[in-house]
Amino acid sequence: MYDIELSCIEFIDKLSSKSPTPGGGGAAAMAGALSAALSAMVGNLTIGKKKYADVEDEIKRLTELVKEYQSELLDLVGKDAEVFEPLSKAYGLPKDTNEEKAYKDEVMEKCLYDACMVPINIMEVCCKVISLVGIFAEKGSVLAVSDAACSASLAKSALQCASLNVWINTKSMKNIEKAAQINEHAEKMLAEYCSIAEEVYNKVTAKLKNK
Amino acid sequence: MYDIELSCIEFIDKLSSKSPTPGGGGAAAMAGALSAALSAMVGNLTIGKKKYADVEDEIKRLTELVKEYQSELLDLVGKDAEVFEPLSKAYGLPKDTNEEKAYKDEVMEKCLYDACMVPINIMEVCCKVISLVGIFAEKGSVLAVSDAACSASLAKSALQCASLNVWINTKSMKNIEKAAQINEHAEKMLAEYCSIAEEVYNKVTAKLKNK
Repeated sequence: MYDIELSCIEFIDKLSSKSPTPGGGGAAAMAGALSAALSAMVGNLTIGKKKYADVEDEIKRLTELVKEYQSELLDLVGKDAEVFEPLSKAYGLPKDTNEEKAYKDEVMEKCLYDACMVPINIMEVCCKVISLVGIFAEKGSVLAVSDAACSASLAKSALQCASLNVWINTKSMKNIEKAAQINEHAEKMLAEYCSIAEEVYNKVTAKLKNK
Repeated sequence: MYDIELSCIEFIDKLSSKSPTPGGGGAAAMAGALSAALSAMVGNLTIGKKKYADVEDEIKRLTELVKEYQSELLDLVGKDAEVFEPLSKAYGLPKDTNEEKAYKDEVMEKCLYDACMVPINIMEVCCKVISLVGIFAEKGSVLAVSDAACSASLAKSALQCASLNVWINTKSMKNIEKAAQINEHAEKMLAEYCSIAEEVYNKVTAKLKNK
């Protein structure tokens, strides 16, 4: 049974335990899925309303898109678990002889790379959500504007959580050049998209607090 | 059936729909529960390890505490739904006659107040999580330090998401003094605890990126 098929109570409980998965990467993907779902909710509360007939087609298209991201992020909860299990086993390999050490190094390097690429993928999808959330906040139903801002805040946090799972794995990689390339890609996403998400959050907060 | 008894896939799917609940408040509480669970996980990966015998008692105590917050936050997903349903019905009350208008105003005011106090409660519990997360990051297993930072980032986002659900409801309250009091309480929590959570996140990030 996949973790996302667990009830929310069971998922949260398994997350809190020392069971190897879900971990921070799975939580990042789940936070991303919450964010995508909130943007989709704003879309669904806008579609079919006379007041928003002018933007209906655009919102319909973007809602479909963000629902795809939601489903990709849910899949990434499972993918993160898939790549973490072999990594956690590789940590336990013996390294008493030179042969064992060489074999362990090789397996570890492969597992670390895989364990980086899933959070990189989570980050990529979160960036796509962030690129839409401002449109939901601006053109979507004003009754759900706080939900669009929640979506922005959660997408930023999901991006941050996924990046932590990149750093902790690239840190142990022996191929320093490859690790640096992956880090740079993650850094770029953080630098560009965190500020977009913050801007949406700040704009909506200012609007709501200005009676 | 409560929303948190749904599978994660079903919860996310219901969140994305135009069904009145779960909404932004429920998502805030869920993000808070993810955060609390990640802190508890760091605790559970620390307890029983020889290397951390010195902090075992403290970490045990804090892990039990944060598991309580986790369960409170899961309960708050349901409480947010409970207070939102009557509010969404109150919005639909007729206001054609003066009597109807007065009755609607009265019901709305009560419902808005209740719909503010649940996110205020979510914020309070998130602040408690944030007050512990730095200890998990500092004294917990170094293998799980990225998870402590994820917990910090998610707790901050949960705090922000809950605050948005305070502003959107106090905005419509007629009792301006009461609304201002609630806003002030929320503002104080944001001002104090967001920066604590950021500090934990930044410290861990710097540590992980400094090979």
